[in-house]
Amino acid sequence: MSATDRPLRIAEIFGPTIQGEGALIGLPTVFVRAGGCDYRCSWCDSLHAVDSAFRDSWAAMSSTEVWARVRDLSGGRPLTVSISGGNPAIQDFGPLIAMGRAEGYGFALETQGSVARDWFAELSMLVLSPKPPSSGQVPDWAVFDDCLRAGQGASAVVMKIVIFDDTDYAWARDVADSYPDLPLVLQPGNPEVDPAVPVAAQDVADRLLWLVDKVTAEGWFRPRLLPQLHVMLWGNRRGV
Amino acid sequence: MSATDRPLRIAEIFGPTIQGEGALIGLPTVFVRAGGCDYRCSWCDSLHAVDSAFRDSWAAMSSTEVWARVRDLSGGRPLTVSISGGNPAIQDFGPLIAMGRAEGYGFALETQGSVARDWFAELSMLVLSPKPPSSGQVPDWAVFDDCLRAGQGASAVVMKIVIFDDTDYAWARDVADSYPDLPLVLQPGNPEVDPAVPVAAQDVADRLLWLVDKVTAEGWFRPRLLPQLHVMLWGNRRGV
Repeated sequence: MSATDRPLRIAEIFGPTIQGEGALIGLPTVFVRAGGCDYRCSWCDSLHAVDSAFRDSWAAMSSTEVWARVRDLSGGRPLTVSISGGNPAIQDFGPLIAMGRAEGYGFALETQGSVARDWFAELSMLVLSPKPPSSGQVPDWAVFDDCLRAGQGASAVVMKIVIFDDTDYAWARDVADSYPDLPLVLQPGNPEVDPAVPVAAQDVADRLLWLVDKVTAEGWFRPRLLPQLHVMLWGNRRGV
Repeated sequence: MSATDRPLRIAEIFGPTIQGEGALIGLPTVFVRAGGCDYRCSWCDSLHAVDSAFRDSWAAMSSTEVWARVRDLSGGRPLTVSISGGNPAIQDFGPLIAMGRAEGYGFALETQGSVARDWFAELSMLVLSPKPPSSGQVPDWAVFDDCLRAGQGASAVVMKIVIFDDTDYAWARDVADSYPDLPLVLQPGNPEVDPAVPVAAQDVADRLLWLVDKVTAEGWFRPRLLPQLHVMLWGNRRGV
């Protein structure tokens, strides 16, 4: 194993399926979910990739091994690979991204913006998702700005904010004002995170409607409002 | 009334709400639906804007009047205006677009690509939506290519194809191959077009799942697959 091929902690690799949320919604994607996170959001819907209690379920895989799996799942046909977590930025995904790009694949990465990495510049899309008050986490904006700078070479940088309540919404408006040039997606939060509990598509729709009513009432036309489409399609089931 | 302000036939103007389909999904939008169409798709979900039996319900409005209404609905705050139909390209929306652009608004227009217009170049997004075999219509590809050329000055041109069945899907693959550079969205068809009949969000989700299974099984990773989100949110209700 070379110095550039240290093992990664991987919670799951699955796909191809469609991206269910954010600016790339609907795009065929293979997902690489990293294990481990520097945050503990109160409503985390991916605790299996965050809490070290699940650490035994994470695979230690070299970048070469992860790449082989992505390549196999996609039949060697280039597509977008989404790296999520947990917070994938606490690990070094630079080597994986370099391997995939060499074969024509693109990489999107989603992170809260708490750790900046040089290899953000190699992404086709960097999704910065600062966590709102309902998460119980407090963003470090100086580091967030470092992430923005690191991502300047990426093909696109977008901001996505999850909204659970009025407080989150007011916070999102302030944050958005501080970053007037970033494309912005707002996504209603999903209070049901147990994969065993069925989620009705209509419930997801209703939470989005609440958000639609808010922005249209205020005439705030900047953000795109998008649901977690995968939850509408598959509920909270994993691996789809 | 000036020579550039001839009346338009308008089926409805509504919003702001979010765009429910295509590349701008989730974006706050005011909709201007033009009355009249040169096509008669078998499954048309907007017959009230197509069939001349509904002509008496269409308003004759000058571009100035349409613009005043859009401005009023949006509170004078610039947003994206979506011009749809029917086929809006059979009328002259150039003056309306010029009025809106002068105040910072952007315009998206959706058309089957059967009539080319110089003012396509003034759009922020031209959506060309050639109709598949299930529609019973046959595209004139020479005119479609004229539309593409006319839209070269637009900020973006995308292709959207509605898919009802396997025949439509195979056709979409061929068409997509003929236009390798166009961003492509596939959208499952909605067989229920009666606004009085409730549509379950889950039914829309199931039709999208069928399409997800097809593209992933074939490894065709180019198109984005998106539902009619507004149907998931509001069923076939009009004016939302």
